[in-house]
Amino acid sequence: MSGNFLALAQPGVQQLSPYVPGKPVDELARELNLDPSKIVKLASNENPLGPSPKVLSAIRDALAELTRYPDGNGFALKSLLAENCRVDLNQVTLGNGSNDILELVGRAYLAPGLNAVFSEHAFAVYPIVTQAVGAEARVIPAKDWGHDLPGMLAAIDEQTRVVFIANPNNPTGTWFSAEVLDNFLQDVPEHVLVVLDEAYIEYAEGSDLPDGLDFLAAYPNLLVSRTFSKAYGLASLRVGYGLSTAVVADVLNRVRQPFNVNSLALAAACAAVQDAEYLEEGRRLNESGMLQLQEGFRGLGLGWIPSKGNFICVDLGQEAAPVFQGLLREGVIVRPVANYGMPNHLRITIGLPAENSRFLEALAKVLARG
Amino acid sequence: MSGNFLALAQPGVQQLSPYVPGKPVDELARELNLDPSKIVKLASNENPLGPSPKVLSAIRDALAELTRYPDGNGFALKSLLAENCRVDLNQVTLGNGSNDILELVGRAYLAPGLNAVFSEHAFAVYPIVTQAVGAEARVIPAKDWGHDLPGMLAAIDEQTRVVFIANPNNPTGTWFSAEVLDNFLQDVPEHVLVVLDEAYIEYAEGSDLPDGLDFLAAYPNLLVSRTFSKAYGLASLRVGYGLSTAVVADVLNRVRQPFNVNSLALAAACAAVQDAEYLEEGRRLNESGMLQLQEGFRGLGLGWIPSKGNFICVDLGQEAAPVFQGLLREGVIVRPVANYGMPNHLRITIGLPAENSRFLEALAKVLARG
Repeated sequence: MSGNFLALAQPGVQQLSPYVPGKPVDELARELNLDPSKIVKLASNENPLGPSPKVLSAIRDALAELTRYPDGNGFALKSLLAENCRVDLNQVTLGNGSNDILELVGRAYLAPGLNAVFSEHAFAVYPIVTQAVGAEARVIPAKDWGHDLPGMLAAIDEQTRVVFIANPNNPTGTWFSAEVLDNFLQDVPEHVLVVLDEAYIEYAEGSDLPDGLDFLAAYPNLLVSRTFSKAYGLASLRVGYGLSTAVVADVLNRVRQPFNVNSLALAAACAAVQDAEYLEEGRRLNESGMLQLQEGFRGLGLGWIPSKGNFICVDLGQEAAPVFQGLLREGVIVRPVANYGMPNHLRITIGLPAENSRFLEALAKVLARG
Repeated sequence: MSGNFLALAQPGVQQLSPYVPGKPVDELARELNLDPSKIVKLASNENPLGPSPKVLSAIRDALAELTRYPDGNGFALKSLLAENCRVDLNQVTLGNGSNDILELVGRAYLAPGLNAVFSEHAFAVYPIVTQAVGAEARVIPAKDWGHDLPGMLAAIDEQTRVVFIANPNNPTGTWFSAEVLDNFLQDVPEHVLVVLDEAYIEYAEGSDLPDGLDFLAAYPNLLVSRTFSKAYGLASLRVGYGLSTAVVADVLNRVRQPFNVNSLALAAACAAVQDAEYLEEGRRLNESGMLQLQEGFRGLGLGWIPSKGNFICVDLGQEAAPVFQGLLREGVIVRPVANYGMPNHLRITIGLPAENSRFLEALAKVLARG
């Protein structure tokens, strides 16, 4: 047998294309010889508020224990989450970002011969975790950029183990109501784990979006995944969580790396979860920024997809790639979504008012050049 | 089909027993109502020096970007490691601790019907990553507590994809020479990836242990894994790395989560890798602490396994579990290794001189009680 370590890799892995992240500021600065401090990045749905003082203080307090392993059970954070989310401690799974939770689900429940169902224009990590374990991805065409839940139901069969749905959805920002979710959950067969990805749910508070937690008791095949990377502003630290029955949490915790969440992330998340003020300020900023961008798009004669997230997809009515490149040269990083089957759109994270203006001015300039 | 989500999990996952970490200080304090500041933990091979000032300063500088995603490519750290380790950038894989590197290997190269070969009394993560993907674990009886490399060679067949070896080995501290390693690598078939786990190699500098990096050019089926959790003192932050051919690194990077290593870990590791002073101080402390413990064991009439790590296994000549419990009641946490097939040993991490003394006194007290 030969020593070709690509051919020796698992078939699913051989065909894996890695996730393409938003372009880092430093990378653009290196490539175009720009001043990093002048670059505006609205590409990764990061919180524009900057770090919360309470979180920074919690991290500083935790630095004394830097040489110690994290608490592998995440006792303090799990206790807080269990209380906040009205579940038992043993229903919580902590992840190295919610990406980790999605991957744990894939590794626990998917394999060659089985399949996962998800929507077109949905988060790129769903196909990646499915492909990585050699399972089949059933991608259901979207309806008005959102999930076609009846279509997804129809695609489920005996070999389906997981359905990934997101509310609101990334990158489109689309959403579904409590009634639609309830009907869907009622019809999904009990052998199928429904992963309800609520990475952006904190931005939708007060709107007509359902709270996934309200459905946990009724549906033992439901897992709700959430993250500290967005509204809580901890993207750098990697911490997310899953809420499910104790059985599913037990299975995911077996697969989980013993120290998957680092100590500073645990300390920061404990502070963040109690920092209602930061969350509220972020929501307000997001709301006004969303209006600012929509007004700007209107002024430029551009359409967009209505969004409940901290981002919005603008429809350029033409191939977006050259506009993306033009914006980079102006020092503005946004997110191309051609790899999401949306070649005419760009996804813009809602930034600070000045960042939104910088982006809108750069966009007007690039579009005017034609 | 029923909704039993334990039965629905992959067969390998169903039989998975999670890793048992060293008891955290806070957990013992809660359980026995002890003052956490009085507890001595010598259970997880953590660096007793405490954090390096250079590392702390690098972390503080990185806090401003807390809301941003990490650089998924880890450009800065990979550049430093490539230079230090005399390899190209594309031969480096970063992991959320070296645990992550071991797991990436398992997920990329193992599956039901394939097998991994490793030694008795070796790191508990080797069987876990093998079991998690449903592959067969071939555990080869140890020789004098160390690897029986000829025996491991004899166990390799067409279905073997990975051999895990550790130098020095954890939990035993045993090691092999450059000549023995070279002979082994010459004889391993080219379709088998040899994972040389050097988590503790920095403590063995200047001894007769080989540097795994010296063998990378000659053996394209060699991967060397290393960590910042031990000699570099960054256990809390989770960062490790693998060095291999570019082909193997490409495969592992496909499987790797896009942001597996957090930003503060990246910043801290960049500082740590340039902090020769901290490493040197840690080595000196380890050397004197090792002698201190051996002297203490001699005084108590106890034997031990000679070790090149920052830990030592003491032979109690009786069941160790009651002694471990007795030490807990004295506020001293060490590591039972019965789950490593070593029921009469305890593994002690080399601590600060005062911590070593506290442990030796507690041990004398517990043993005297009988």
